[in-house]
Amino acid sequence: MLIMVNLDAPREDVEKIKNKIKSYGCTPHEIPGSLKLAIGVTGPTSKLAAEDFMRMDSVDEVVKVTKPYKLVSREMKKEDTLINFNGGAVIGGSNLTVIAGPCSVESRQQIFDIAGLLKEMGIQFLRAGAYKPRSSPYAFQGLKEKGVEYLNDVKKELGMKIVTEAKDSNSLAVILDTADIIQIGARNMQNFSLLQEAGATGKPILLKRGMAATVEDLLMSAEYILSQGNYNVILCERGIRTFETHTRNTLDLNAVPVIKKLTHLPIFVDPSHGIGIWDKVPSMALAGAAAGADGLMIEVHNHPENALSDGFQSLTPKTFKLILDKLKQLAPIVNKKVN
Amino acid sequence: MLIMVNLDAPREDVEKIKNKIKSYGCTPHEIPGSLKLAIGVTGPTSKLAAEDFMRMDSVDEVVKVTKPYKLVSREMKKEDTLINFNGGAVIGGSNLTVIAGPCSVESRQQIFDIAGLLKEMGIQFLRAGAYKPRSSPYAFQGLKEKGVEYLNDVKKELGMKIVTEAKDSNSLAVILDTADIIQIGARNMQNFSLLQEAGATGKPILLKRGMAATVEDLLMSAEYILSQGNYNVILCERGIRTFETHTRNTLDLNAVPVIKKLTHLPIFVDPSHGIGIWDKVPSMALAGAAAGADGLMIEVHNHPENALSDGFQSLTPKTFKLILDKLKQLAPIVNKKVN
Amino acid sequence: MLIMVNLDAPREDVEKIKNKIKSYGCTPHEIPGSLKLAIGVTGPTSKLAAEDFMRMDSVDEVVKVTKPYKLVSREMKKEDTLINFNGGAVIGGSNLTVIAGPCSVESRQQIFDIAGLLKEMGIQFLRAGAYKPRSSPYAFQGLKEKGVEYLNDVKKELGMKIVTEAKDSNSLAVILDTADIIQIGARNMQNFSLLQEAGATGKPILLKRGMAATVEDLLMSAEYILSQGNYNVILCERGIRTFETHTRNTLDLNAVPVIKKLTHLPIFVDPSHGIGIWDKVPSMALAGAAAGADGLMIEVHNHPENALSDGFQSLTPKTFKLILDKLKQLAPIVNKKVN
Amino acid sequence: MLIMVNLDAPREDVEKIKNKIKSYGCTPHEIPGSLKLAIGVTGPTSKLAAEDFMRMDSVDEVVKVTKPYKLVSREMKKEDTLINFNGGAVIGGSNLTVIAGPCSVESRQQIFDIAGLLKEMGIQFLRAGAYKPRSSPYAFQGLKEKGVEYLNDVKKELGMKIVTEAKDSNSLAVILDTADIIQIGARNMQNFSLLQEAGATGKPILLKRGMAATVEDLLMSAEYILSQGNYNVILCERGIRTFETHTRNTLDLNAVPVIKKLTHLPIFVDPSHGIGIWDKVPSMALAGAAAGADGLMIEVHNHPENALSDGFQSLTPKTFKLILDKLKQLAPIVNKKVN
Repeated sequence: MLIMVNLDAPREDVEKIKNKIKSYGCTPHEIPGSLKLAIGVTGPTSKLAAEDFMRMDSVDEVVKVTKPYKLVSREMKKEDTLINFNGGAVIGGSNLTVIAGPCSVESRQQIFDIAGLLKEMGIQFLRAGAYKPRSSPYAFQGLKEKGVEYLNDVKKELGMKIVTEAKDSNSLAVILDTADIIQIGARNMQNFSLLQEAGATGKPILLKRGMAATVEDLLMSAEYILSQGNYNVILCERGIRTFETHTRNTLDLNAVPVIKKLTHLPIFVDPSHGIGIWDKVPSMALAGAAAGADGLMIEVHNHPENALSDGFQSLTPKTFKLILDKLKQLAPIVNKKVN
Repeated sequence: MLIMVNLDAPREDVEKIKNKIKSYGCTPHEIPGSLKLAIGVTGPTSKLAAEDFMRMDSVDEVVKVTKPYKLVSREMKKEDTLINFNGGAVIGGSNLTVIAGPCSVESRQQIFDIAGLLKEMGIQFLRAGAYKPRSSPYAFQGLKEKGVEYLNDVKKELGMKIVTEAKDSNSLAVILDTADIIQIGARNMQNFSLLQEAGATGKPILLKRGMAATVEDLLMSAEYILSQGNYNVILCERGIRTFETHTRNTLDLNAVPVIKKLTHLPIFVDPSHGIGIWDKVPSMALAGAAAGADGLMIEVHNHPENALSDGFQSLTPKTFKLILDKLKQLAPIVNKKVN
Repeated sequence: MLIMVNLDAPREDVEKIKNKIKSYGCTPHEIPGSLKLAIGVTGPTSKLAAEDFMRMDSVDEVVKVTKPYKLVSREMKKEDTLINFNGGAVIGGSNLTVIAGPCSVESRQQIFDIAGLLKEMGIQFLRAGAYKPRSSPYAFQGLKEKGVEYLNDVKKELGMKIVTEAKDSNSLAVILDTADIIQIGARNMQNFSLLQEAGATGKPILLKRGMAATVEDLLMSAEYILSQGNYNVILCERGIRTFETHTRNTLDLNAVPVIKKLTHLPIFVDPSHGIGIWDKVPSMALAGAAAGADGLMIEVHNHPENALSDGFQSLTPKTFKLILDKLKQLAPIVNKKVN
Repeated sequence: MLIMVNLDAPREDVEKIKNKIKSYGCTPHEIPGSLKLAIGVTGPTSKLAAEDFMRMDSVDEVVKVTKPYKLVSREMKKEDTLINFNGGAVIGGSNLTVIAGPCSVESRQQIFDIAGLLKEMGIQFLRAGAYKPRSSPYAFQGLKEKGVEYLNDVKKELGMKIVTEAKDSNSLAVILDTADIIQIGARNMQNFSLLQEAGATGKPILLKRGMAATVEDLLMSAEYILSQGNYNVILCERGIRTFETHTRNTLDLNAVPVIKKLTHLPIFVDPSHGIGIWDKVPSMALAGAAAGADGLMIEVHNHPENALSDGFQSLTPKTFKLILDKLKQLAPIVNKKVN
């Protein structure tokens, strides 16, 4: 942290600032300049908030120079985090993992049909929501307990790993035994209570980036989970809000190389929500893989035109298969292998 | 809703679309154009989702023309909603209500000192958080139960109305008896489970706009509360995220006249979070009142430089008093009266 | 500027950085920290670009701590800039100046009718475009020379000051003799060649903020004009782009107190373009004045429903008169007087 | 266009609206609904502006349903536009064209060194600016005429095609004989006078997307050029502004499949400006190609740490070579070939 002080500040103001710094166990360093006096701070700066100094007399500006997150940072842990699952599946490292499935579980028949097709293509992770946070109280909110039951049947009968969303304490409790990966949706990215509760289960968590969240916001939310002792976190870029009206969201692939550098956690890309229009999902899926993502989460539905939610962004199994084949060709160029 | 179909669409595609519309109990209307065929839809369109039609053959675009919210709309209820409190306080209508207080309860002494000063100035509603959602897991998260206890003491001893935040089920249960208005924070604006739970208590709810939420998003979230049978909802603009770096947020005062037209619910403005820098809060408070807000929520702290959170955006009691006086002069120009 | 270096950087890298700093005539200061070594820079830092250091070995981050603009800054000139016109009109200081008129000159009759009504209300500055930059090549682009001729007639016959837009070198030359204030539109805010050319005329310039420009961007563009020796610059907030769809733009009133603090130049607000819907313009006009603006620019048209451009955001003379009266009541609260 | 009218509108208002529609040679169609009456419009709607109806009595909302651009649209011309150059180079179709070079011409030596290295790698198009629009009036603005002279020498001696920027009428005149492709920068995307002037030269034009422009804005600006009779336009995505602070801009790859669908014009991607940090440029270059771009524009500098502008985002020739090799592997997956 760097505290900028007016050059004409009385000496006592400067001493007051330096004393406040010392009271936190930190050390102040004066750096006189031509326009301002800068006071650098070193030591255990994590306890200092920039705001603490902004209201002090003669302080003009406070500049933050260290990152507010710790456990998630590459500086804390240099090697990529690998998340291991029963049966040998691994997420992270040189793997390009494809999670696929419908937006929602709609019926026993529907989820078994889709899961069966995906398993045949070699997909290990099935995504499907039983609890759906919807912006309208009048929209389909998922099959709930019934949906979880069907997912559990798929898990047992087909041996697939289940990725499904918890939207609150209640749904978290219901999905807990079934989910291999607990999804936290974009709208809950800063529902800190839910992050802590889900984190405390110890299960792998797929944390979706909020639609106006910066990368730092996302990493701070992940820090909430890691601070519970749970390091099995997968970050997921799923589109941000921009001024564009031709797409539902704007998939931000810049986040992929940025996040790979800042943290050891794996970063996935969800091109289905990301661009939100099925015929453009294949391009964004390939682009996500080329950007270096550790995985993709893609919506697939056998009858997208009848889907109860998000049919417009779902691929048919046939289109999905075409893309999967292209992903297998592309992965080695970025030193990955599709799993 | 208007479904745009390619001019060269085969007749059976058009019939399929029209049948789908009818299956929802609605009526299709063909409007042939020079570039497209438009199919207008009338009837109980609330059950139709644009997405349901987008994947159908020959459909080019789906244009929504009606609002997705109902209970909150002016069309449903023409008169301004008034919220009445014990002791005669009223929010809405011709009132310009000023809610004031510190960001957080920090101690029994602190909250009594500030509340005392505010009461003397005629302020009826005290704001102060006992539960604070913070973006860092390492930051001060509020005094919790202890904080609620102090607020309850203020309520009893000074007779002030208490505005305090619920951040999850647990904190909602703890604050319930003390809070006269339950605040739902910006980060929880789309925590639909919390909205429903808070709504079901029947207590007045102050719902803050999320920092990347549109007015429609905010109204949809309010709809979640009203759909529980609770019409005592106060909307609150508290700053959106923009590209600007000189301010913490960008207070969007455009939302005030827009919201006044679309809904019967009162709209408040929080200039403290909205611009986030204390010396600019007075200008934005006055501007909010001039824009037609039904109330203001302003952070006031007796020692802002030592505040445990958000001191940088808090006014001293002295500055607050100056602004309050100016607000009283300004209110009649917009046909309001400060209460 | 502060250059953050990895703690394990070899000594020669640090020396190389320090030598580069010295080569610009500046002085480096080492500030060792627990995670990084910071090197502060003092002296004539205006020549250093952060980017110059970012590619050097061992450099982790470069933090800018000084402002990139000079002549426009309050530090350079403490007192408010006042712009004086023939006949005694003054912009800036304690004046709240109202500029009004139609979006475009449409005919001799139209501009005389509107100007006459405004003059009667005491308005001194008439706005009207003869050259209109339009996003479609097929839209009405203004009456051009003919429009300037009519404006010149109004100037001579009614004695009003003329505010009109230059969109390129040619239109600048045509309007030069007629315009008392040259308007540079939002889309040209970073047309640096036009800024320099207009600046060199020495005439007062009203510079509109681009719709995705930060305050710093706007001030840098103003710096282009001041660097030509022309200090008669009026800044104008006219709405930024946000995610909101209920309004044409989002008038950013936060910019008013922010700009008042950073620069000595007057700041105007254009509520007509800012919110873009006539029935909400009055609220935003009052809010702009309450936020401390030095002036307002308001679209007024005697037949808004037939206007060739922007009729939807224009006030009728009758509504404008009502607002003008309210502005006169409001101005003293913020220590201003309408002129 | 669809005009929504209040259900309780008097019949004469409806007739007035219908007459206005007819006065433009269009046909009105009434579609009665449960909440509103919709009036659909068919015929030559290009002359109608939504705004024309918004001020009419009883009109509640106007919904646009057709695109405002014509010549650039896929509906006007189904096949991809191919741009042919002397010597056989072609842009568009199955080509993935790589344009490379430094941000600015800095000296004869520098541009010949870099051009020589690139030519050896098979690059046909050299980019380098002689005129640089800079946000600070004090920053390096390019070598101007001298720079153009050096570029012309490269063109003659090495036989490379030159891509260089025109920032105003003057610079356009100077570069005209040398440039094979005239670049219009992001800040000038809505400098309509420059678009028309550059368009009128008949030369190929590379039009960069403004940093807050929507795809529609970009296409409207291209329409300005095509409306001059010049169809040789290359669109270029170069990063938009978002809330992210870890990158200079946010490269929007969603624009690639969106634009490919809407227009016949080729779309390029500039990952160097797009993400703005050299070590992340390779990921975004690959992602851009995978998204289906028709070309890439990449900054390459032999001494990035000493570059006079944008060194931080430039690749060394060595890194560029690695990426070029990967692009050649990737291109066939998206049915392209690097040229």
